[in-house]
Amino acid sequence: MDVGGTSVRGAVVDRYGTVLDTARAPTPSGQAALEDAITAVVAGLAERHVVTAVGLAVAGFVSADRRSVMFAPHLAWRGAPVADRIAKRTGLPVVLEHDANAALVAEYRYGAARGAGVAVLVAIGTGIGGGLLLDGSVFRGAFGVAPELGHLCLVPGGRPCPCGKSGCWERYCSGTALSTTAVELLARHPGRSTVLAREAAGDSRAVTGRKVGAAARDGDPLALLAMAELATWLGEGLALISDIYDPEIVVIGGGVSESAPLFLDEARDHYKSVITGAGHRPLARIRTAQLGDDAGLVGAATLAAELE
Amino acid sequence: MDVGGTSVRGAVVDRYGTVLDTARAPTPSGQAALEDAITAVVAGLAERHVVTAVGLAVAGFVSADRRSVMFAPHLAWRGAPVADRIAKRTGLPVVLEHDANAALVAEYRYGAARGAGVAVLVAIGTGIGGGLLLDGSVFRGAFGVAPELGHLCLVPGGRPCPCGKSGCWERYCSGTALSTTAVELLARHPGRSTVLAREAAGDSRAVTGRKVGAAARDGDPLALLAMAELATWLGEGLALISDIYDPEIVVIGGGVSESAPLFLDEARDHYKSVITGAGHRPLARIRTAQLGDDAGLVGAATLAAELE
Repeated sequence: MDVGGTSVRGAVVDRYGTVLDTARAPTPSGQAALEDAITAVVAGLAERHVVTAVGLAVAGFVSADRRSVMFAPHLAWRGAPVADRIAKRTGLPVVLEHDANAALVAEYRYGAARGAGVAVLVAIGTGIGGGLLLDGSVFRGAFGVAPELGHLCLVPGGRPCPCGKSGCWERYCSGTALSTTAVELLARHPGRSTVLAREAAGDSRAVTGRKVGAAARDGDPLALLAMAELATWLGEGLALISDIYDPEIVVIGGGVSESAPLFLDEARDHYKSVITGAGHRPLARIRTAQLGDDAGLVGAATLAAELE
Repeated sequence: MDVGGTSVRGAVVDRYGTVLDTARAPTPSGQAALEDAITAVVAGLAERHVVTAVGLAVAGFVSADRRSVMFAPHLAWRGAPVADRIAKRTGLPVVLEHDANAALVAEYRYGAARGAGVAVLVAIGTGIGGGLLLDGSVFRGAFGVAPELGHLCLVPGGRPCPCGKSGCWERYCSGTALSTTAVELLARHPGRSTVLAREAAGDSRAVTGRKVGAAARDGDPLALLAMAELATWLGEGLALISDIYDPEIVVIGGGVSESAPLFLDEARDHYKSVITGAGHRPLARIRTAQLGDDAGLVGAATLAAELE
């Protein structure tokens, strides 16, 4: 299962990482309703397949023992023993994992990070999700929270973040950031983009990251400028990641990675120029994710299979 | 051995972490002279004790196989196979380790980090050295460079750093930073410190971090302001460390930690207030180092003993 702020997605995955079947439901707002929705999706899939274990990829802090959700900004759980509750409801063994860690498990097993001793995932979507695998095992720190990359402060006193801080990396390198940057650029250069200026005419919130990405892929000059800014901030963050984890591979995933051909080379160049000790150390390989939207589901299933 | 930019220190350490004897020499500038000096210190100690292996704690990037020094800003080695060269000269097995990692090994085995599953060392001296142990094993990343904490950019466009970047953490949280901050404060409030103003009268470089620390311990108001700034930046960096490693314990070492009673509580308070997800996750314990100046030596010897 992939439990996000918008939808609860389920998939039946075989031992080779193949998705055999899927189901989904909208994410309800209360705890009980959320657990009902998950149980119903599992039950629906279990009617059509032999299901032996459940993995839940969750967009939130998962405890180090992988049994509880400590905090999830877009979900109702707060210090909730989710694994035991769902296990009781479904009669199946259940394991939780942070969604970015789960996605990286899938990329390590079947995708872009195969065999990397130290692998990092940067999932660029609405915000940034971070994952870290050491020799194939999820690193989650002493309390289950690491790596929390999206809220690293890259710009002290910078753009305010809903997390309560300001200047967080994801304010500058995400779908949301693409939107913010494009709106800022439109204010300065209104003639640079007829497409996005038209979108912004009624309400600037209509200039979503997705629309900026689409405009950039169509060659819109202002959208391409926004993409170039994102590339710079991605490069800054990658340098920071090399300083703290010194990884062999960094996988760039999330919805924004669909536009990777428009920003990845620039991000790599910036990364190489700002890394500490540039020229005196090997660089990480920066790759785009291969499993797309299914990575969280496949990773959660991979971890669930290890329970048996 | 602890091989730093100023001196080459040696110690004979027994299997219980006790320092039985020491020797030192100034650090020469060339590679061959540096290796001569190390060999001579080892030979001198080996005349008086049964020495069975040599560990070198080095202030620089050590390769992942612990055989070569890739880069060291204050030492002559560049991609140098130091372990094999010293082994050949001394006839003893040799292992290299980054000095902060070595110090943390000693703190884990005998000091402030005993038994911590995820332990980080922040050694605050002229700059910042970082170390990370996972279940007692040194984490060094894929290429031997992690964790490189001193040059994390905390203030984009901030104080210039000799590393070529600007706004690095150690520009705001180190002995050097204490000096810079005190000189800045003196320019704004010349009457706030008669002691430091007298020092600065001839040459502001006379206001060293050590003197600021001593003045602060004597209650000098300007030096205490500089200490409070350092506390804030230490808190910022600790929050960043919790986001990236989620450690159980962070050990604060290095020369500046002698003044820990003057900044550690404030740093802790700031850390608690700026951590991502404050209130929804356990906090790391922040402790001062227990082994002082000997930590690198004892840690290097501990790692050398594991070679046998």
